[in-house]
Amino acid sequence: MQKVRMGMVGGGEGAFIGAVHRMAAALDGEIELVCGCFSSNPARSERSGLALGLPAARCYSDYRQMMRQEAALPAGQRMEFVAVVTPNHLHLPVVMAALKGGFHVLSDKPATLNLAEARALLPAVRASGLHYALSHTYTGYSLVQEARRRVLAGELGRVRKVVVEYSQGWLAGNEDASSVWRLDPERAGGSCCMGDIGTHAFNLAETVTGLNVAQLCADIGPLVPGRTLDDDGTALLRFENGARGVLIASQISVGEENNLNLRVYGERAGLCWRQQEPNSLVLQYNDRPAEVLRAGWPGLGDGPLGLARVPAGHPEGYIEAFANLYRAFAARLRGAPKGGFHLCGLEAAWRGMAFVDTVLASSAAGGKWLALPADGVGAPGEPLRP
Amino acid sequence: MQKVRMGMVGGGEGAFIGAVHRMAAALDGEIELVCGCFSSNPARSERSGLALGLPAARCYSDYRQMMRQEAALPAGQRMEFVAVVTPNHLHLPVVMAALKGGFHVLSDKPATLNLAEARALLPAVRASGLHYALSHTYTGYSLVQEARRRVLAGELGRVRKVVVEYSQGWLAGNEDASSVWRLDPERAGGSCCMGDIGTHAFNLAETVTGLNVAQLCADIGPLVPGRTLDDDGTALLRFENGARGVLIASQISVGEENNLNLRVYGERAGLCWRQQEPNSLVLQYNDRPAEVLRAGWPGLGDGPLGLARVPAGHPEGYIEAFANLYRAFAARLRGAPKGGFHLCGLEAAWRGMAFVDTVLASSAAGGKWLALPADGVGAPGEPLRP
Amino acid sequence: MQKVRMGMVGGGEGAFIGAVHRMAAALDGEIELVCGCFSSNPARSERSGLALGLPAARCYSDYRQMMRQEAALPAGQRMEFVAVVTPNHLHLPVVMAALKGGFHVLSDKPATLNLAEARALLPAVRASGLHYALSHTYTGYSLVQEARRRVLAGELGRVRKVVVEYSQGWLAGNEDASSVWRLDPERAGGSCCMGDIGTHAFNLAETVTGLNVAQLCADIGPLVPGRTLDDDGTALLRFENGARGVLIASQISVGEENNLNLRVYGERAGLCWRQQEPNSLVLQYNDRPAEVLRAGWPGLGDGPLGLARVPAGHPEGYIEAFANLYRAFAARLRGAPKGGFHLCGLEAAWRGMAFVDTVLASSAAGGKWLALPADGVGAPGEPLRP
Amino acid sequence: MQKVRMGMVGGGEGAFIGAVHRMAAALDGEIELVCGCFSSNPARSERSGLALGLPAARCYSDYRQMMRQEAALPAGQRMEFVAVVTPNHLHLPVVMAALKGGFHVLSDKPATLNLAEARALLPAVRASGLHYALSHTYTGYSLVQEARRRVLAGELGRVRKVVVEYSQGWLAGNEDASSVWRLDPERAGGSCCMGDIGTHAFNLAETVTGLNVAQLCADIGPLVPGRTLDDDGTALLRFENGARGVLIASQISVGEENNLNLRVYGERAGLCWRQQEPNSLVLQYNDRPAEVLRAGWPGLGDGPLGLARVPAGHPEGYIEAFANLYRAFAARLRGAPKGGFHLCGLEAAWRGMAFVDTVLASSAAGGKWLALPADGVGAPGEPLRP
Repeated sequence: MQKVRMGMVGGGEGAFIGAVHRMAAALDGEIELVCGCFSSNPARSERSGLALGLPAARCYSDYRQMMRQEAALPAGQRMEFVAVVTPNHLHLPVVMAALKGGFHVLSDKPATLNLAEARALLPAVRASGLHYALSHTYTGYSLVQEARRRVLAGELGRVRKVVVEYSQGWLAGNEDASSVWRLDPERAGGSCCMGDIGTHAFNLAETVTGLNVAQLCADIGPLVPGRTLDDDGTALLRFENGARGVLIASQISVGEENNLNLRVYGERAGLCWRQQEPNSLVLQYNDRPAEVLRAGWPGLGDGPLGLARVPAGHPEGYIEAFANLYRAFAARLRGAPKGGFHLCGLEAAWRGMAFVDTVLASSAAGGKWLALPADGVGAPGEPLRP
Repeated sequence: MQKVRMGMVGGGEGAFIGAVHRMAAALDGEIELVCGCFSSNPARSERSGLALGLPAARCYSDYRQMMRQEAALPAGQRMEFVAVVTPNHLHLPVVMAALKGGFHVLSDKPATLNLAEARALLPAVRASGLHYALSHTYTGYSLVQEARRRVLAGELGRVRKVVVEYSQGWLAGNEDASSVWRLDPERAGGSCCMGDIGTHAFNLAETVTGLNVAQLCADIGPLVPGRTLDDDGTALLRFENGARGVLIASQISVGEENNLNLRVYGERAGLCWRQQEPNSLVLQYNDRPAEVLRAGWPGLGDGPLGLARVPAGHPEGYIEAFANLYRAFAARLRGAPKGGFHLCGLEAAWRGMAFVDTVLASSAAGGKWLALPADGVGAPGEPLRP
Repeated sequence: MQKVRMGMVGGGEGAFIGAVHRMAAALDGEIELVCGCFSSNPARSERSGLALGLPAARCYSDYRQMMRQEAALPAGQRMEFVAVVTPNHLHLPVVMAALKGGFHVLSDKPATLNLAEARALLPAVRASGLHYALSHTYTGYSLVQEARRRVLAGELGRVRKVVVEYSQGWLAGNEDASSVWRLDPERAGGSCCMGDIGTHAFNLAETVTGLNVAQLCADIGPLVPGRTLDDDGTALLRFENGARGVLIASQISVGEENNLNLRVYGERAGLCWRQQEPNSLVLQYNDRPAEVLRAGWPGLGDGPLGLARVPAGHPEGYIEAFANLYRAFAARLRGAPKGGFHLCGLEAAWRGMAFVDTVLASSAAGGKWLALPADGVGAPGEPLRP
Repeated sequence: MQKVRMGMVGGGEGAFIGAVHRMAAALDGEIELVCGCFSSNPARSERSGLALGLPAARCYSDYRQMMRQEAALPAGQRMEFVAVVTPNHLHLPVVMAALKGGFHVLSDKPATLNLAEARALLPAVRASGLHYALSHTYTGYSLVQEARRRVLAGELGRVRKVVVEYSQGWLAGNEDASSVWRLDPERAGGSCCMGDIGTHAFNLAETVTGLNVAQLCADIGPLVPGRTLDDDGTALLRFENGARGVLIASQISVGEENNLNLRVYGERAGLCWRQQEPNSLVLQYNDRPAEVLRAGWPGLGDGPLGLARVPAGHPEGYIEAFANLYRAFAARLRGAPKGGFHLCGLEAAWRGMAFVDTVLASSAAGGKWLALPADGVGAPGEPLRP
């Protein structure tokens, strides 16, 4: 099997998330890194690329140049897709350049800097006919896929209640915007906590339920004095089918690592999944004992079962979940039909940005219920589409 | 040691909570049931009392008569306190009659039918000089007392965030008000879920943090079609010290038993307690490993440690927690000083009713932030006292 | 319902286990303590009894006298059964006296001081026609009863493997026989750890599987220097049906509280129960997800389900399990048929003593496989009955 | 950084463990697969290698030829070490050929087919001066390394008791030797369960405690009828320092996945680690609350802390643990000093084979205590070295 050829923008020396993307891409041996624009500093980009075993000629310092030069290479040699792992404000321009060069895109989340940019992103991707995926890593866990499969198959009955949370503690100290760019409005945009991890929780809830949040009412803010951006927040949710929910996100919850967890309650059953022990999924009932589904163990659908790389009881973790995204994306590029594995794409890109904008607007309005803007258009609070 | 003599109003044949009160009172052998008005039906009350080993002469069917007759008995013979375990609408009149008779009161929660009644309760109890306690059972767990002790001692630093939840699933079916009195506005008052279990969650959060909720913004409602009263709800919270929080209560979360849990995050530490495994309390930090405190094990304060009836690792449960309330109340009656064990009383009575009223008002207003009314006066949404 | 009248031998001021027996007997309000021989010191016994609300006339200091005097009381007044909570060496003589007086017996475990005494106990009880029960508390948990029910119903298929453990840490210090009577051969008999808690583990394994251990091979010893008796040990087991197993007991496992746990693996399913979280029972399979049975929740048999005093999710613990024994014993005395709740009796009495003797003999022989002696006769290592 | 060049023997199309080795080697981007003898079938080996992106010229079908040809390549091009992932009976000859070619070796466990072969392995490796490592994967978890670090630092005090278990359920059906090679004495050697997973448990116990097992007494056997080799077994252990222990291994424990777990109890503290939730390590005490150490979280030693690839709470699993072995081995080849990460090597190779042989001998002798043979010489049951 020919490896799929990947380029990368961002992820130079010392960049954390770029390294994770590369481990994820490398894990299954189906993708090969062939070029990169790891930094706008030419020396740094080249040093980074050489350390990764790339030839100097394919270490770029200008992503537009990279797109042009790669596009000029022979078909069997040039990169096929680009992984975008830059800071958020560069996502849109890099993706635009990639589309222009005819390259598929796997982008880090959030899709863009803000909702206005997302309004530009959607038509461009759609017009290109190219593949676009968003690295909502947590959806890559096999049991998240299984949870979605079961909810969509109606096993819970109509969904009535959703509780989703992403709590961390790492910003509970007195860090300020000079030491943590996520706290700096210039670099992070309008939100720290909700943009960074609230979006993951939101995406997880919508992915698993297959339902859109229609309206929300939020209370966010910095709980550590001296900050401008939110480090904590909660949003009350109303889903399009009438279900209610709550989304909790925090970066000041001391002692929490990456406590992302989801519970969905339907008419007939409930489910519970926790990211820190990702290989278990609990299904619970009022009229019989709860069941504990396990990654790689009988009881899963064929798709989620097939994600396992090692036998049940040999835990797979975050990097494997991430690798599942890359493996699915590579399969798409090879022509695999959509369906089966749910890979977040353009719709999730919009939803995430719409979520953050609406949370900001609702909280700023003193906790007002606002509608999330419709796909690709609109602004928070506009009337729901009928 | 002379046993403390208890009377009971309510709790006749088949009544669940009355039986639990009696088990709790009996467990430590310090309290003796000497009389009761178990039902307004004379035959039923007598039958209930005889089954409990009481003489017919002290089985009453009119609680006012009970108060009068008991008051007329010799001091060493008459009941010393009355346990009120009637439906909610009788709490106030029974307590009033008890106070008039000079009897201390241990009342089931909620304290009264509504906030207006609570406004009447407080001055009456205060004027009487008698002891009044409210059976917020969950505060009876030794590790809840330990959690409170640690927060009040400042071990967490200033409290910033509180997450409290009480989720059940037993009303997820199609029960209606004809089969479940809690769903009937006539009998249950303005709220089902928030009044029944939301109050427990609220009380737990205020008890452990030692902080009052200043304002809230709620979204409650029936999620099962055809109901009038709420079977689910969430409230955003703001505490008097600026901390934020969220309270989740539900009776339609399929598969949940009595999932009451609390997390408190301060500047320096966080804590987590779960009622279904009540003998563990997790203290967690950003700079060192989490600790798991265990009932009866070194690491607890003397008070909580002393609550254990059996060595650590022999689990004590709900009935023991309830018995802790009775044991503490009996000690008060024998003259033990307040302090040490935190027993909920008049203040908690008011706070609980204020919480329910404010939740109802906020939700009815479409999710408006409202202030909780001040102690013994006021109405939801009135300005906070300076 | 008339309360069943109980007398007690042992359990004076400060005695731990006597107090637990009394709490367990009192919990359900079906048993009344009417007399006791709490100490051989008359003043101490009377003081203990008065503190428990007994009249001085029924506070004895000689258990033989107690049996005689109680037997002379009117039928509706005299005690009906005696709870024996003395040190082990008194179990046999007290039980003998009780039988002679015509009183049923609920005895603390172990049944006797040694196997020779057990050989005397069995025929005496059988000849008396009286009820005899042994307080193997852990079998009182509803999920232990459920586990037994399921195994006996064949849900696991033939049992192949049993792992049972009881680990504590309280003897990990440098306690010696002068401070802890269990370490003193004079008072504790031939074994500390195996006699005290190994017997509980052994009983749990035999109770749940319904199988007898046929042979064992043990390695026990004091792991803390300077001790004569064992504070730790392990035994390899062979069951009568060919299943194998292992029993681990320890009192020097630092940090362990009362870590009693059992796993049984059959041809088709496995089960796991842990005493420190006693309200869950896991059933696991090779071909589908594990199920988590919960006390008081659908999925249990009628008998175990009916043991719940409070709704599922309100944990019941050690005292409630103990109370289940008392409630079942009281029901027997009122004529309830055997069946349903499994209450340990004479057979368990013998098995426990046979276990300890065989462990001691096997370990002393340097780890030799020995057969457990047959019911009421024989000695360790004698040939198995055909 | 130049990648370390790896060759592989074994691991052709469809071979499970070879693929895991390759994922582990690839994860950190420090190792490059440059050649392989994936099968003795030339077409199959070439097909396998091409699929992995190797040139046909470096796809061998004879491992001796591979060693010769690679040795003849320029230094900067030829493989530096060989990963041996063949069936067990080929381990020794392949390693011998590798040593002869001057190549370092990372071998799958068990090191050899039997103890006699291990006696040949040790002097050959020692004489070669080359690096030899054994893939005891579970020791690669950061918290296993941390556990070892703490025990060796004396934090538990003298070790007194060890409980180690590896239970699986996958052989609980009626599989026989025709379908599962591990059950076939011809292909698997003298043991199925003990050789396959008992060795992992044994290695884990010796690795973490830093102590050798001196003697053992075992009971193993097939519990599923019709089998020749053991599918279950237990061994009582005595360590060189006088500590006792028990090792449980099973492949017929229905519902178990890869339940490998270890507990070590010393004079002052105990520890507990479970492979299925590998990112937690519990340290427990008699005089204070237990601590839960977490991968990547403060509280770990610098070495184990540095193993984390992602922030705490993003679980790393089995493949990452495996990759830790490869990363450490690559560092050795680059000249990193031993120390820090504990990588199993020759000593563990011998110990594992000695363990299996002694278990077989003890069990065959009807449960006799036997000494494990000394390093590189001796046979089970020979007197312990003084």
